[in-house]
Amino acid sequence: MTDSSPPFRAVALLLPNLTQLDLTGPAQVLSSLPEVELQLAWRTTDPVRCDGGWSIVPTVSFDDAPQADLLLVPGGQGAFEVLTDEVVLEFVRAQAAGARWVTSVCTGSFVLAAAGLLAGRRATSHWASLPMLAEFGAVPVRERIVADGNVITGGGITAGIDFGLALAAEVAGEEAARRVQLRLEYDPAPPFDAGSPDRFGADAAAEIARASQEARRPLVDAALRHLRRT
Amino acid sequence: MTDSSPPFRAVALLLPNLTQLDLTGPAQVLSSLPEVELQLAWRTTDPVRCDGGWSIVPTVSFDDAPQADLLLVPGGQGAFEVLTDEVVLEFVRAQAAGARWVTSVCTGSFVLAAAGLLAGRRATSHWASLPMLAEFGAVPVRERIVADGNVITGGGITAGIDFGLALAAEVAGEEAARRVQLRLEYDPAPPFDAGSPDRFGADAAAEIARASQEARRPLVDAALRHLRRT
Repeated sequence: MTDSSPPFRAVALLLPNLTQLDLTGPAQVLSSLPEVELQLAWRTTDPVRCDGGWSIVPTVSFDDAPQADLLLVPGGQGAFEVLTDEVVLEFVRAQAAGARWVTSVCTGSFVLAAAGLLAGRRATSHWASLPMLAEFGAVPVRERIVADGNVITGGGITAGIDFGLALAAEVAGEEAARRVQLRLEYDPAPPFDAGSPDRFGADAAAEIARASQEARRPLVDAALRHLRRT
Repeated sequence: MTDSSPPFRAVALLLPNLTQLDLTGPAQVLSSLPEVELQLAWRTTDPVRCDGGWSIVPTVSFDDAPQADLLLVPGGQGAFEVLTDEVVLEFVRAQAAGARWVTSVCTGSFVLAAAGLLAGRRATSHWASLPMLAEFGAVPVRERIVADGNVITGGGITAGIDFGLALAAEVAGEEAARRVQLRLEYDPAPPFDAGSPDRFGADAAAEIARASQEARRPLVDAALRHLRRT
């Protein structure tokens, strides 16, 4: 029996210097759905180095990427490094215009913001960077998954797995998402209780956030100037 | 100021057709520790295709891999496909002989078992395959992280993140592990409650396990014959 239904096309941006779990977490979830075809897209198909120092090979270049049903933008330092890159931003805008869902994990939301896609939208990001999203006209929300219309953003790094399962339910239904959760044995049991600023210690976390935002301030400022230049 | 301490060397086996999150989850945790140097090792440094259809580039070949302080073996269909591959098994045994910790995630424990490293050891695996570990002389334990001496095994797929944080505490101390947990915003909130057989539905899960074990039976039998041939 031939299944002639077109695949559900997910296209993820494979950013150099990305925080790879932002991508590989939801990728594992989405790849567990038989109807999903996942492409990893970058400017060329040369291997792309992630934050761990090893490389992932893009499956398509920007020029050859199909129109996404779902666009996924991961984060990390690499996200901040493309915020004024018009080739990247134009690819994101073009994909977003035709996608059913426009999504990001962690600081990938800054790429959506820099492309002008979060103006007036509720959205989230990594906890340490979230406040800066407001400067792009977004409404920052401290939740692991935030949906505003067809824009779905996930919180920091490991939030991508929770986010991936929520996307799976949107794409294939809740029953399919539950089967994926079982297959991935996603019954999390962190050995420590330090996964959010409050649990880690609010004062120490605030200092981490302050230092992180200070370090990224030049790239964010450049992005805002770039966004406002037209 | 030069830090002349040698790096802590983690060596992960980059198996073709691996379930990539088995590796990328703990890799993200370990890479967050400044003292850790992570190598991804395979026969050659040609890109290795994971279960999602995209490829990761090994950082070293078996011949060039350093002695690991920590050996990490991920799972997936690819793990079952190397259970009689003496080149792979010999690399695993040689690394294990000199490593401080010998570890696996998900069905990666079957590679350790096929290399003869789990005889008499308490160990875990993906919930659907776990019972078969007993056939290799291991003592199967249904927990997300099992430690028996210097052999630490993690449960299915996403268990690799919990496992990674436990390893981080062993390598760098609990305070460092808590900082990594915060950075990874690992405060999980699965959108559904189906991450283990009991939560999904015991009868349906039992059928999934039965079918999975039946499908892998030939490769497991070949591994047992191979293990017993000497």
